[in-house]
This record gives sequence, C-alpha cells and structure tokens, in this order.
Amino acid sequence: MKCSVYIATSADGYIATLDGSVDWLHISGNSEADMGSEDMGFQSYMDSVDCMIMGRKCMDMISSMNLSSEQWPYGDICIVVLSNTIKEPPENLLGKVEMYSGSIQNLILKLENNAYKHAYIDGGSTITSFLNLKLINEMTITKAPILLGNGVPLFGKLNKPIKLIKAKSVVYPNEFIQMSYGVQY
Amino acid sequence: MKCSVYIATSADGYIATLDGSVDWLHISGNSEADMGSEDMGFQSYMDSVDCMIMGRKCMDMISSMNLSSEQWPYGDICIVVLSNTIKEPPENLLGKVEMYSGSIQNLILKLENNAYKHAYIDGGSTITSFLNLKLINEMTITKAPILLGNGVPLFGKLNKPIKLIKAKSVVYPNEFIQMSYGVQY
Repeated sequence: MKCSVYIATSADGYIATLDGSVDWLHISGNSEADMGSEDMGFQSYMDSVDCMIMGRKCMDMISSMNLSSEQWPYGDICIVVLSNTIKEPPENLLGKVEMYSGSIQNLILKLENNAYKHAYIDGGSTITSFLNLKLINEMTITKAPILLGNGVPLFGKLNKPIKLIKAKSVVYPNEFIQMSYGVQY
Repeated sequence: MKCSVYIATSADGYIATLDGSVDWLHISGNSEADMGSEDMGFQSYMDSVDCMIMGRKCMDMISSMNLSSEQWPYGDICIVVLSNTIKEPPENLLGKVEMYSGSIQNLILKLENNAYKHAYIDGGSTITSFLNLKLINEMTITKAPILLGNGVPLFGKLNKPIKLIKAKSVVYPNEFIQMSYGVQY
C-alpha cells in the first residue's frame, strides 16, 4: 500500500516545541494574507487517503486539542495509533482511533488485507520508522516562516541516506512554503 | 551593514555529514538534468556581497578541498574567519582569508568603518550566532533532494523564535529546491 506524509514544520525543521506545542504554527506567516478557500492542499490530500497511522505522541497532541466533531480534520477514516504501552485511547478519542502494538510490517499487511490502499503517516518518530523501513512513498512538507531554534524535529536518525525525487514547491499567500517529494529507496 | 546567508542543506537540514563531508551535495538530485549555465543564483549572490565571514570549521572544509585559483568560488572579496584559537590560516588559504578573534559586533563595526556594505555569512555555528545577535537580514537556503538522516545541522539553538518574511521558492531542473526569506526581529 502507498504510505505518504503531509506535515507542517518550522523553517528549521521542527514539528513542535519541546513541550509538544504547535501554537507557533497558527501565528506564523502573514496572517493578513487573503487565503480564500486555500487550505494548502489538506482536503485534497485527505480525499486521497483511506487510513492513517500515527505515533502515541501525535495522538496525545491531537487529544490535547479537544476537537469538536466539527473541528475534527480527519473525516471518518480508520486511524491506527502505534503504542506498545498504551492499550486504550484517551476518552475524547474513543471510537475515533484504535491502538496497535506490534510490528509496522504486520500492521501494513493487516491494512492491505482489509483493502486499504493509501495511509497517511503522521508524527516524527513514526515517519522516521517508516522511512527506515522504506515504506514512505511521498512527502508533502509545509514550512511555516519561522525559526523555532529548538523543538521536536520532523526527521530522526536514518539507517542510511535516502534519495528524494520529483521535487515540487509552492509558496502560499501566507508565506508558507510547501515542498513535495517522491522517495526513492 | 547587511548580512546574508547563501547555503545548501539536505532536505532534513544538514550542511555536512558528521565527519564534515559535503560529497553528498554533488551526487544529489537529477544529475542528468540540463542545468545549462544555471548556477542556482550563486554568481549573482557573489556579485552582491563585498566581504565574507565564516567559522573555523567552514574554513577547514574549504581548505580540505584544496581548490586551485580557477576553482576558487569567492573571487577576491575580503574573507574573515572567526576563531579564538587559530591565529594563522592553513597554508593553502594564506593570503585568501584573515583570522579574527573578538566579538562579532566589533568585527561588524570594523568592516563598516572600512566601507563594507554586505557580508556573506557562512557556516552553521556562525549563522546561528549571527541570528542570535539579530544580524542576519536575508537567507537563501538551497535544499538538495536527499535525507541524510544525521549530520551537522544548519540551524543551532536560538535564544528565541525568529519570524521570517518575504518567502520565495524555486525548483531547479536538478530537483534542488531553493527557499529565500527576509528576517524580521
């Protein structure tokens, strides 16, 4: 199955501050820019995926936002959260995500057996694990125009360098730069 | 005086491998792309600066390349190397760079007193120091389409977040993505 990434980072490559906050994301860039209905490709991306796999920290961050049904950005796609320690999701995510402990390869097989075709992979550690397993096929990284100077990096250590292909880039009116790549192992 | 950055990184933000190598830079991207006379803006950038300030590690990297006069990319601009320990440049850089120990602010004053207008700031630690001193005005970062997975990061720790403005982006035929920003303190 296809696995891809759609994630925002600071210009220096962090996905959150050290305390897990992404508040900086919402105050970065030109807030007076006319974005119209521009969502930087998020809905179109969501329409292309049929399941999502994220790490436990990513789930905690989403849980902390305490989103209403109207604010929930992931539609009704199947969301699997990787954790070897937590067996139940937080109360406000009950029924929205399912926990999984075990190997990523077995999870992918299980999803493929259930006819899933395209997984949205989210969270820095999870993305890095998938890259090391040569499972990520495409990445869309949207860079907010801010240097955080410290935080949780998107990319962790890789077993070896990975070649990117099909580079694309677009600058949105809010001064966010979105880069897209294919991945060649 | 204006201080700016023109630097290449991997897609995950490293300027060199842990052993200081930038060999990956020369094998990244689509090597069969017709770049014609395209130099990704380097000569135009060099024409805009009249001096250069770099760290000692950056000097060592350039020294290790053992460039001939024909290969020397920095013309005859004044190059100042920051070091509190090394008093003389390596033999193959004698006459090409001058060593400086002291505060960055005093160096800038000295250069301004000598009518310099625009400094090219190079090297990760030096760029981070300049950002923390609110001295960098513009940055051009060219991202090679490769994830290194480890190495020397372009950006170090900052005293506080820094807002970037005037975002621009271009994709070159070799699949390098160049991002340009102004800096707002």
